[in-house]
Amino acid sequence: MKETQDLFPTRLERKLGMFERIDPVVHSDGEQRARGPLSEAQLDEFDRKGFLSFDGFFGQEEMDAFLQELRDYEDDEDLKLSEGTILEPGKQEIRSVFGIHEVSEHFSRLTRDPRLLAMVQQILGSEVYIHQSRINYKPGFKGKGFDWHSDFETWHSEDGMPRMRSLSCSIILTDNGEFNGPLMLIPGSHRQFVPCVGRTPEDNYKESLKSQEIGVPDEASLRDLMVEGDIEAPKGPAGSLVMFECNTMHGSNINMSCWPRSNLFFVYNSVENTLHDPYCGNRPRPEFLANRKDWRPLTPVE
Amino acid sequence: MKETQDLFPTRLERKLGMFERIDPVVHSDGEQRARGPLSEAQLDEFDRKGFLSFDGFFGQEEMDAFLQELRDYEDDEDLKLSEGTILEPGKQEIRSVFGIHEVSEHFSRLTRDPRLLAMVQQILGSEVYIHQSRINYKPGFKGKGFDWHSDFETWHSEDGMPRMRSLSCSIILTDNGEFNGPLMLIPGSHRQFVPCVGRTPEDNYKESLKSQEIGVPDEASLRDLMVEGDIEAPKGPAGSLVMFECNTMHGSNINMSCWPRSNLFFVYNSVENTLHDPYCGNRPRPEFLANRKDWRPLTPVE
Repeated sequence: MKETQDLFPTRLERKLGMFERIDPVVHSDGEQRARGPLSEAQLDEFDRKGFLSFDGFFGQEEMDAFLQELRDYEDDEDLKLSEGTILEPGKQEIRSVFGIHEVSEHFSRLTRDPRLLAMVQQILGSEVYIHQSRINYKPGFKGKGFDWHSDFETWHSEDGMPRMRSLSCSIILTDNGEFNGPLMLIPGSHRQFVPCVGRTPEDNYKESLKSQEIGVPDEASLRDLMVEGDIEAPKGPAGSLVMFECNTMHGSNINMSCWPRSNLFFVYNSVENTLHDPYCGNRPRPEFLANRKDWRPLTPVE
Repeated sequence: MKETQDLFPTRLERKLGMFERIDPVVHSDGEQRARGPLSEAQLDEFDRKGFLSFDGFFGQEEMDAFLQELRDYEDDEDLKLSEGTILEPGKQEIRSVFGIHEVSEHFSRLTRDPRLLAMVQQILGSEVYIHQSRINYKPGFKGKGFDWHSDFETWHSEDGMPRMRSLSCSIILTDNGEFNGPLMLIPGSHRQFVPCVGRTPEDNYKESLKSQEIGVPDEASLRDLMVEGDIEAPKGPAGSLVMFECNTMHGSNINMSCWPRSNLFFVYNSVENTLHDPYCGNRPRPEFLANRKDWRPLTPVE
């Protein structure tokens, strides 16, 4: 499918200034918005800050089962060789496993958790499907960080996601403290689109998933966003949840502590916002990064 | 001067386990200890944790004058070429300026601040001199971190400091928050000496001041210390002070925020603990890293 107009120009040779988003942040209204499960105050907070955090949304026991599954993956040499597994730069350690909801029935069911799904549908104002899922590993002493970025900037240019109508759920599998490289977000940054400079090379994802060089916001824009909105890093026990809007600027630091930090990311997209051809003009990225095969709406597990 | 016995063996080919310190942490007793300015509770805290922090010890105005002086240094091409100036790995940006109390009368006077000096003398139980001074720069977005280390491990092996009877004062010139790469310390870690593995190359400091490869504590020991003592990162406005014992394990992360973080370090050593030949057997490091010329006791400024 070809799009005639690109509403979010980025990855050009010349620098464009940041500009205000054109899409709503909370997409439901009327009865759907009022029905919950999120309260009006929570929706307002999401609208204003671009994220919501929930301490211990899932229980410790639920998380323990996932952690055991993760440990099994760490020893799985086949998984290390699979296309969706990204190793640390120059190392044999796993940084991310993409498509985790397809590898594991256990994780797949979690994406269809009734409470989670209802909140996502309420924010996106429609039925939803999984655009991408992944686990990020950040082992003690070794885990690297992620530089500041907007997911939407990449999903738009490299995956052809037309509008800002998706969000990520980050579920923390380990206790999340000040020192093990927690997710940092810039409140309010989702209200601005920051175009990035530089043409996207073909197969850019092979490098960008290890260390991003293209799709990097400029420091002047980041500074403006931080001075306006500050930085927040939600803390909490294993099972805590952060839901953040697809355009919220976020990143994370190196884990210098001994405490590992692993988390799950599920990216939900509205079924009314399915992918076009990539706006950067390249061929689409692989399925494990951007689902183009199965846009059927998710239904809650019993 | 040659030492017959090395009480803190490190930098050997084989790994030695960590062992308990043999020196006191607070060296004064009797009347000198009771005289202050630190209270018995503060001395106990320093003894237990290996550091003390003071919110806004110096005033904002005092700090502003130093910051202006720092800005002048950033533009000073001669200073960039000077031996005591360490640039970021592969870059032209200043990481540290050593010997700052010799470059600047203003900074020299600060090392002799009566309140500061009296606290240091009370802890070290004697008159003191400056072993080393430096400014660390950590600009917004760009500032790199420092891996975990004990200063004493280096000062003993590379500078010939015989015993644990010195301390660092870190004075923060900029507000110190969660996100601009604050100093992190492991409470209680000063009670253990962690020998490091690997012979010290000659002129090791030329690399180690940018990125430390020798004198790196092993992960198992660090984990034990963290599990026992946790990690703390004192926050505070410009002018805040952290005094930490020479063997307290510390480090700092990358500055991913837009807010720069600059701080001053003054290392005070007891006049009863002056330097021997380096225990690693190499020739001494340069004067700007380890003062061997002037061990006269500091006297307070008027």
